Amino acid sequence: MKELHSGVCAPKGFRAGGIWCGIKADSRKRDLALIYSERPCVPAAMFTTNMVKGASLLVTREHVAAGSLHAIIANSGNANTCTGDAGVKAARRTAALIADEFAIPAKSVAVASTGVIGVPLPIAAIESEISSLADSLCGDAAGHNAALEAIMTTDTRKKDGAIEIELSGVPVRIGAMTKGSGMIHPNMATMLCFITTDADISREMLEKALRRAVSHSFNRLTVDGDMSTNDMTLILANGAAGNTPITTENDDFTIFSDALESLCVSLARKMARDGEGATRLLTVAARGAADEPGAETLAKSVASSSLVKAAIFGADANWGRTLCALGHAGVDFDPEKVDVSFASRAGSVVVCKDSRAARFSEEEAKKILSEEEVEINITLGDGAGAAVVWGCDLTYDYVKINGEYRS
Amino acid sequence: MKELHSGVCAPKGFRAGGIWCGIKADSRKRDLALIYSERPCVPAAMFTTNMVKGASLLVTREHVAAGSLHAIIANSGNANTCTGDAGVKAARRTAALIADEFAIPAKSVAVASTGVIGVPLPIAAIESEISSLADSLCGDAAGHNAALEAIMTTDTRKKDGAIEIELSGVPVRIGAMTKGSGMIHPNMATMLCFITTDADISREMLEKALRRAVSHSFNRLTVDGDMSTNDMTLILANGAAGNTPITTENDDFTIFSDALESLCVSLARKMARDGEGATRLLTVAARGAADEPGAETLAKSVASSSLVKAAIFGADANWGRTLCALGHAGVDFDPEKVDVSFASRAGSVVVCKDSRAARFSEEEAKKILSEEEVEINITLGDGAGAAVVWGCDLTYDYVKINGEYRS
Repeated sequence: MKELHSGVCAPKGFRAGGIWCGIKADSRKRDLALIYSERPCVPAAMFTTNMVKGASLLVTREHVAAGSLHAIIANSGNANTCTGDAGVKAARRTAALIADEFAIPAKSVAVASTGVIGVPLPIAAIESEISSLADSLCGDAAGHNAALEAIMTTDTRKKDGAIEIELSGVPVRIGAMTKGSGMIHPNMATMLCFITTDADISREMLEKALRRAVSHSFNRLTVDGDMSTNDMTLILANGAAGNTPITTENDDFTIFSDALESLCVSLARKMARDGEGATRLLTVAARGAADEPGAETLAKSVASSSLVKAAIFGADANWGRTLCALGHAGVDFDPEKVDVSFASRAGSVVVCKDSRAARFSEEEAKKILSEEEVEINITLGDGAGAAVVWGCDLTYDYVKINGEYRS
Repeated sequence: MKELHSGVCAPKGFRAGGIWCGIKADSRKRDLALIYSERPCVPAAMFTTNMVKGASLLVTREHVAAGSLHAIIANSGNANTCTGDAGVKAARRTAALIADEFAIPAKSVAVASTGVIGVPLPIAAIESEISSLADSLCGDAAGHNAALEAIMTTDTRKKDGAIEIELSGVPVRIGAMTKGSGMIHPNMATMLCFITTDADISREMLEKALRRAVSHSFNRLTVDGDMSTNDMTLILANGAAGNTPITTENDDFTIFSDALESLCVSLARKMARDGEGATRLLTVAARGAADEPGAETLAKSVASSSLVKAAIFGADANWGRTLCALGHAGVDFDPEKVDVSFASRAGSVVVCKDSRAARFSEEEAKKILSEEEVEINITLGDGAGAAVVWGCDLTYDYVKINGEYRS
């Protein structure tokens, strides 16, 4: 597996671009992104399970179901959510604008939005800049970066990646970009994630690979326990690599699927690290649970506990909060057989053994927890279930960002 | 219903006291409390549902089941949780010390603890001060206040109350104290709550009244989504008022039960207001849900959303976050028929009508949300289910308190 640097433009036949069209107040910030493939793509997608859904999402769901996509247009600064029929109309109009520009069916255009809820989408702004958006397309890192910038809101870091694998000797690429740093909680992790690949793969296999990858990555990510109305992970496969089409769960499928999962895990970690106000990436691993879903629920309960997150911010080895968060996860386990250790590149320290305090140096623990990437490793005494989840610390800046978001 | 001012000492026959015995480092802070009734009391209790339970709780559960209590001894500064068999032994020893002092059965003493998890309870400190604790008992507000101080940890306000009602012409009193400001979330709200009453009431009826009161008060309270390992609400009824014993759900039961509920609601509100770092009491009312449990779940999802709480801290009328939190509550509702208004003593403003932005003045909304007590009122279009829950805002101080709790 080789790492590449041009994100969604790494796979053959994809171009991307991004501009400012006037949705964000600051004209230095791009707010409209386009990803485009000349060849029609097989799509697969996963959407938020929030009851309240953005208008763009409703339209995109319909278009993905239709089965063939050429493009993704995404805006930031406005979620087009809680905007009623007018919102759905605006999302359809956005797709139609791209369709006209490229002479493709409107149903082949996916639409995504992220930003403030409840404000009408300024469709006129999009309309007047649609040609500039089309003109901004290019097939290299610059195109990818412009598109990525244009989907960012409170994100402070670029979260992207691209890899190359070989399927029976044929190089195949997968590229991705994500945005999202608040309202992040399974299922799904709140986010937009656009993935491109030049693999030739059937819709059924693409869906299977995406579901597996998301369940082990974005669905194991929590920033603040809130699940957005606009979450969407969308993958487009245009077949330009010319590999033998993947239509069953053969070896090529396994290689492709593993690569997609590893790319999504690396993005999930980047999203956790870029959680709103976060100073640390927190990895919580639960092992020895009765089963994997139980392990996942337990680990998520710890990673999403405000008390644990605040302690991690303070680099405070307050392991009692880990025990407490495990205890109210709603999963059965033996409360007398819990081991907890903290780890980072500065070392590792056992803080709790058989649910009792272990002897450890507070000073050493503080040093370990002061690193930028820290781990809470939990071992239960119930079985072989294991899961790893990602989160971040709870900081003054989280409060600041979210106390003043609209101001 | 008359309000009184001596808390758990208001009902006849109860005395209380509190001292510093050396569990807390600061000798100006009391850490050991006692509530005592000469007459044996009928007890009823509710405990945390956390899988990890404090040792005191395990012992108290056993003693409550035995059916007759004289006393509650409670310490703060040490949770006696994750302390293994030694912890249970220490809790039993604590009960035995009071039993010896008053020549009562050890099983008639309830034990409660709150504080840091995983540190052995310094039983020697309790042992050496047990006589001073007994000596500190008195039957007025001073006794109540000393006991209340001795159960507080990060609490910044006293949360107590006492009322008098008449049952068929006989005055009956109920008094209460609570502690708790973090790790607070249903079920149960993380807390210690000790209630005394001189009512003559059967155990069955007392349990029924307590369950009802708690379900409409403490179980509708959320501060940070964490449920403690040591939660306990305990009521003692010593019958000293001389009313006709309540043994069925008659009129006297209804009066008693309503009074208990109203006392618990007032304490729940005080706890929310004293949530760690809180600057505002947040009341969330959901009406028009399909049923009451649904309304409760929806309201709790809003009141416990970090994004909503941070917006309330910033007095930001970001109602989209309310919609978002409703949407991921896991309750079915019509996402197109949601109305939201914000209210406080400064006025009321409709911000969302039929799931769309209402026209409102941001300035007015800010003024309303800048009050110390604010309400989010939600009306759904699904039925007659309604529920009110209480919470608080998420502030810099919450992060500060919990990032440095043990330091």
